[in-house]
Amino acid sequence: MGSSDIQIVTNVDYSNLESISKNIKLLPGNDQIKELQTILRDKNTTRNDFKFYADRLIRLVIEESLNQLPFTDCKVVTPTGATYHGLKYRSGNCGVSIVRSGEAMEQGLRDCCRSIRIGKILVESDVDTHEARVVYARFPEDIAKRQVLLMYPIMSTGNTVTQAVKVLKEHGVKEDCIILSNLFCTPAAVQIVTDSFPKMKILTSEVHPVAPNHFGQKYFGTD
Amino acid sequence: MGSSDIQIVTNVDYSNLESISKNIKLLPGNDQIKELQTILRDKNTTRNDFKFYADRLIRLVIEESLNQLPFTDCKVVTPTGATYHGLKYRSGNCGVSIVRSGEAMEQGLRDCCRSIRIGKILVESDVDTHEARVVYARFPEDIAKRQVLLMYPIMSTGNTVTQAVKVLKEHGVKEDCIILSNLFCTPAAVQIVTDSFPKMKILTSEVHPVAPNHFGQKYFGTD
Amino acid sequence: MGSSDIQIVTNVDYSNLESISKNIKLLPGNDQIKELQTILRDKNTTRNDFKFYADRLIRLVIEESLNQLPFTDCKVVTPTGATYHGLKYRSGNCGVSIVRSGEAMEQGLRDCCRSIRIGKILVESDVDTHEARVVYARFPEDIAKRQVLLMYPIMSTGNTVTQAVKVLKEHGVKEDCIILSNLFCTPAAVQIVTDSFPKMKILTSEVHPVAPNHFGQKYFGTD
Amino acid sequence: MGSSDIQIVTNVDYSNLESISKNIKLLPGNDQIKELQTILRDKNTTRNDFKFYADRLIRLVIEESLNQLPFTDCKVVTPTGATYHGLKYRSGNCGVSIVRSGEAMEQGLRDCCRSIRIGKILVESDVDTHEARVVYARFPEDIAKRQVLLMYPIMSTGNTVTQAVKVLKEHGVKEDCIILSNLFCTPAAVQIVTDSFPKMKILTSEVHPVAPNHFGQKYFGTD
Repeated sequence: MGSSDIQIVTNVDYSNLESISKNIKLLPGNDQIKELQTILRDKNTTRNDFKFYADRLIRLVIEESLNQLPFTDCKVVTPTGATYHGLKYRSGNCGVSIVRSGEAMEQGLRDCCRSIRIGKILVESDVDTHEARVVYARFPEDIAKRQVLLMYPIMSTGNTVTQAVKVLKEHGVKEDCIILSNLFCTPAAVQIVTDSFPKMKILTSEVHPVAPNHFGQKYFGTD
Repeated sequence: MGSSDIQIVTNVDYSNLESISKNIKLLPGNDQIKELQTILRDKNTTRNDFKFYADRLIRLVIEESLNQLPFTDCKVVTPTGATYHGLKYRSGNCGVSIVRSGEAMEQGLRDCCRSIRIGKILVESDVDTHEARVVYARFPEDIAKRQVLLMYPIMSTGNTVTQAVKVLKEHGVKEDCIILSNLFCTPAAVQIVTDSFPKMKILTSEVHPVAPNHFGQKYFGTD
Repeated sequence: MGSSDIQIVTNVDYSNLESISKNIKLLPGNDQIKELQTILRDKNTTRNDFKFYADRLIRLVIEESLNQLPFTDCKVVTPTGATYHGLKYRSGNCGVSIVRSGEAMEQGLRDCCRSIRIGKILVESDVDTHEARVVYARFPEDIAKRQVLLMYPIMSTGNTVTQAVKVLKEHGVKEDCIILSNLFCTPAAVQIVTDSFPKMKILTSEVHPVAPNHFGQKYFGTD
Repeated sequence: MGSSDIQIVTNVDYSNLESISKNIKLLPGNDQIKELQTILRDKNTTRNDFKFYADRLIRLVIEESLNQLPFTDCKVVTPTGATYHGLKYRSGNCGVSIVRSGEAMEQGLRDCCRSIRIGKILVESDVDTHEARVVYARFPEDIAKRQVLLMYPIMSTGNTVTQAVKVLKEHGVKEDCIILSNLFCTPAAVQIVTDSFPKMKILTSEVHPVAPNHFGQKYFGTD
């Protein structure tokens, strides 16, 4: 059988995405984003280009993830003395990246929120049992009081994210204060993760049966 | 009369924006963008913060402007050998900034399109006649064949943009190949510009009777 | 006769650079900087690479230019309670770029000094008389009280810089408060400029009879 | 006893630095770098500023570290047809950051070398035995053939770096192919590391008995 057998069907109807979970949100789709996704899927893309276009998509996903955070009404005064009715963030956000691929999203977050605190989780699979377990975690001291942007770009099975969220909850983070910031995920992973953590929000750019699992290797140039 | 007389009404109904022109598009609004706009309106924002948040809004406007360019279907092969039906840009785009405030948008464009050619127009108002005229222009040689992203963040009267578009047309650029990339504009300016150039596209983040005219001064720190 | 006749001799002895002027300083030379200069000289360098490596050299030149500014002794207290004897900038600096190529150095300056004010001068040569004249200038209001980093990457004849410095002096800037920040210049240009303005400082990465005059065209992709 | 007892003496004579090791190099000192070091030492520096100025110092250290890599003579042809005798990198470099503080240097390296491969080592101290051990390592496949820029900003005891270099050597990296890229280190750490690995090069901005150990905590905002 040829490669056509594993053709990726790109026009899947995910209008029923909300039937999986009301907490998953897709980056509003457009030609531009589709172009970025195309470049990241293409095996002929150079590492240099891959990183550049990945960073652009990451920036858009981060901006939209920040949009999921809670805002408060506020009034400001303009240079001409007028009152402007606007919005401001509620304070108390932080980022947490899942090593390794999640670290690719740290710079995008810093480019939007200059002095945001960023924690880190390292989850490894046991060679024998294949079980995922957390071997390293560093968080802001007061993470239990914060909204957490959990960064992980490619979610295939959901196992790693599941372990990471468990650790966050063990540190007192409330499930509905976690936003998973993701580029590509599979419907199966969404199902598993939302079944386990129904109150967590997920923001992604694409839900598709085949995730680009070469992402981390190509972005960093290491195994 | 007090400052309340010039309160900015922020909930104006611009659902009839298309009655002004079918070629004007608003950046899809959300809390996040409203927050950026609030910071830029606030007279107490420091220059350092002003530039930082202006750059974030510029990036979003540039990304959405690029989305207005023409794309073509394409097929790529993924690392697993699958075929992916995607999109790619048609080649032949360039940027043109209107000095001075338009230059604030150049870096955002370069951050999205690494080696894009960027031209420049300087329009000045005659001290006596108040007439706008072009005193300097540098374009890519073959601009007549290109799509042009015309960058100008604050459009109050439309006079400067009108002069800039005239020069572009004199250099052979087709009106329907121009996209005006803008942050804030007034309904009056939109009316004038779209009356004069009905085929030009406009992408903005806000249409409002009062534009933040301190933008350039605050961004660059010069008069 | 072949191209060897115009070979660039790279090992010219500029140890007598100070005989031209005691106010000219070369970026301390090393292999790394030589590599950047090589890439910028190479006609086969792509525009994308050209901009990337130009930006790296610009950053180094800007950092060294900032080092020419006046500093003041200061004491700070460290997190362990110790006193640290250090240095701080004296306030009151600004940048001024000469359009067009000087604008390539603005981002490098902003990357080092986040909210520095940046002015701009446009000098054009009269088509008939070949005389350089200033057609546009925007400065911080209080420029007469500031140290000025004048940015212009390629100096071949010194005419443009001469006009720019005249305008700065007309606006009250003291000659010994101007630092010309430059990438490549010719000995002839250095001679002319330092004869006219003996108190101005010049910081450059290379003094060489042949300057890479294609710089602006290649960096911006426009004539 | 007061805080003066632990005053940091800043004018220590490190002219005998080479008596410790001929393989340690200091970033050429100047006012500018002293100013950056002062800001990083100051307990009153905000996190936002701390990150900004740390990134500037990191960039300078990275540029100078790259200068320690081997170069080769080359000839290029300029746009005017002249031959230019220059330098180019020998290929085969990579970066390795030591988690966590070393990761602060990754972006600086990427900003200089766009598609450089970056590996990672996580060393942890055993709570009981205080012994450092490697719990995670990811390298480019062919690291044994590469020059390695090992990134670790603050070196107090030398224990962590010692473990990291051991792992690199176990993966076949030659000792004289490793350059330790560092911001601040103590004389004691330099002694230990150069005794253990006499052929490794060290590039730093300051050798001082008291290292700013709050670096990682302040840069990332986490413990």
